[in-house]
Amino acid sequence: MIKVDQIKDAHKRIRPYVIKTPTLISERLNKKFGASLFFKCENFQKTGSFKYRGAINTIEQLDEFELKKGIVTASSGNHGAALSKIAKDRHIPCSVIMPIDSSKTKVNNVQRNNGKIIWCDPNQASREKTLRETISLTGAIPIHPYNDERIVAGQGTAAKELIENQEDIDSIICPVSGGGLLGGTLCYIKETNPNVKVFGAEPEEADDTFRSLNEGKIIPNKTTNTICDGLRAQIGSITFPIIQKYVDDIITISENDIIKSMRLIWDELKIIIEPSCAITLAVLEKQRMLFSGSKVGLVLSGGNVDLDNLPW
Amino acid sequence: MIKVDQIKDAHKRIRPYVIKTPTLISERLNKKFGASLFFKCENFQKTGSFKYRGAINTIEQLDEFELKKGIVTASSGNHGAALSKIAKDRHIPCSVIMPIDSSKTKVNNVQRNNGKIIWCDPNQASREKTLRETISLTGAIPIHPYNDERIVAGQGTAAKELIENQEDIDSIICPVSGGGLLGGTLCYIKETNPNVKVFGAEPEEADDTFRSLNEGKIIPNKTTNTICDGLRAQIGSITFPIIQKYVDDIITISENDIIKSMRLIWDELKIIIEPSCAITLAVLEKQRMLFSGSKVGLVLSGGNVDLDNLPW
Repeated sequence: MIKVDQIKDAHKRIRPYVIKTPTLISERLNKKFGASLFFKCENFQKTGSFKYRGAINTIEQLDEFELKKGIVTASSGNHGAALSKIAKDRHIPCSVIMPIDSSKTKVNNVQRNNGKIIWCDPNQASREKTLRETISLTGAIPIHPYNDERIVAGQGTAAKELIENQEDIDSIICPVSGGGLLGGTLCYIKETNPNVKVFGAEPEEADDTFRSLNEGKIIPNKTTNTICDGLRAQIGSITFPIIQKYVDDIITISENDIIKSMRLIWDELKIIIEPSCAITLAVLEKQRMLFSGSKVGLVLSGGNVDLDNLPW
Repeated sequence: MIKVDQIKDAHKRIRPYVIKTPTLISERLNKKFGASLFFKCENFQKTGSFKYRGAINTIEQLDEFELKKGIVTASSGNHGAALSKIAKDRHIPCSVIMPIDSSKTKVNNVQRNNGKIIWCDPNQASREKTLRETISLTGAIPIHPYNDERIVAGQGTAAKELIENQEDIDSIICPVSGGGLLGGTLCYIKETNPNVKVFGAEPEEADDTFRSLNEGKIIPNKTTNTICDGLRAQIGSITFPIIQKYVDDIITISENDIIKSMRLIWDELKIIIEPSCAITLAVLEKQRMLFSGSKVGLVLSGGNVDLDNLPW
């Protein structure tokens, strides 16, 4: 379990480096949903996602000896991009293990920050084997995308900023994948504002957290066949107990509803966000009565979209 | 000529109604252009563009008798959408004269605010005739999209906010079409901060202002064959003398460069903006040396884009 102080410390640590992202509102969306919505725009965060928060919180805690060896991760997505950027700024080596079928956009996001890509086959076994080999070969420090207390504490700072900016919110909706963002949010919110409800939004097509909660133990994804490329990870051993303890509910969403919500946010808020966080607005559509008349914070986790392949 | 006090009064008048839009920055774009760029995001303004400022400044100055008769305009774009929205909120009739070949997005923007569309043929003569007929039939008050001091004063409030937020900027780049935004910007900036340079950005394919300045008199557009659907209007008799008196330069931009800059802003700032204001960043690309090492404000005038018809 991560303590509130760990998140407060993380916030102090990362404040000089992160963007305090704005909270946007839309009169038209408020009318449409009969609620007051507050969108925390982590798509405007450095490297285009909240992942920068956990990444910098972790790297800031490495010592000189570790930094010299460099860092490595097996996340091809926004976490890899965040690590690469920080490593580049600090002149430390960074390797990112990516499956050979990674999208061009993701490869670009790592390469433009000089991250060294190490290819693996597109399965868990190959990814883990390549990670182990890289560590033993280079001595690089592995930084897990979510199953690490420093990462979870860093991600929790987004919800801290959200509620400091809008103290009277009734609930928060977060996407859930590996559980870093939702875990950090829960640890902060439930200990500081226990009356605020916190919901996880998960694709029907990658619903391991929803099913794991029901079963009382971690169960793997059956499919990861979702447009939400940031929500295909498996809930972690550190993050799952947090979610078990604190979450009010996990709400699963169909692919169609995710895309509809993504379009709605683009049209109304005039911002570029990923399907992986459009899913939060889809929760409002699905559970309209639950949120009617209340104040709802939605964490828009990222904006790294391939503009040549939009889902409409 | 519009006086600074008119713009200050306008700002007081409209402040309760407009969004004080944020100024965004991008570390990556700053690096790319070797300058500090400040993007004034009027795409986040109500109805998705700066046009709301001038529209509400004008409607606020109508008396009860005029409001009862309703308002009418012959602008099919963002001005029409802004007027319709304000008219809807205040329960006054609003007619918008639109050419029969208007895009679906523009028609939607007016219709969703209950604006009454009156169709005309897609030429100046038909537009003016239909406007005259509507006025004589309904007694509605015409509100010109730019050739009106109340409109120009309202549009000038965007630059006022920009420079109040970032007092040390060296120059401002504005799109120019009918001249409402550029005119308002010039009247405010040149009287309050005469050392700040102000540039107009105009499509090569609709360069009437550039040519008019060179000739010393208003010359019509040869073509309006530009992707910038907000920049096809003709410079006005009220706005042209302001530009003649104050502007530092008008810089014309090719269609290709406009689209490239639009994509760059979408990719880096994660916001949805129209080609009509992407043109401001293209000026930086074209005149890199002119802005090197300086602080530049760019007015991103709007975000009403047809997401089903992107230019890439």
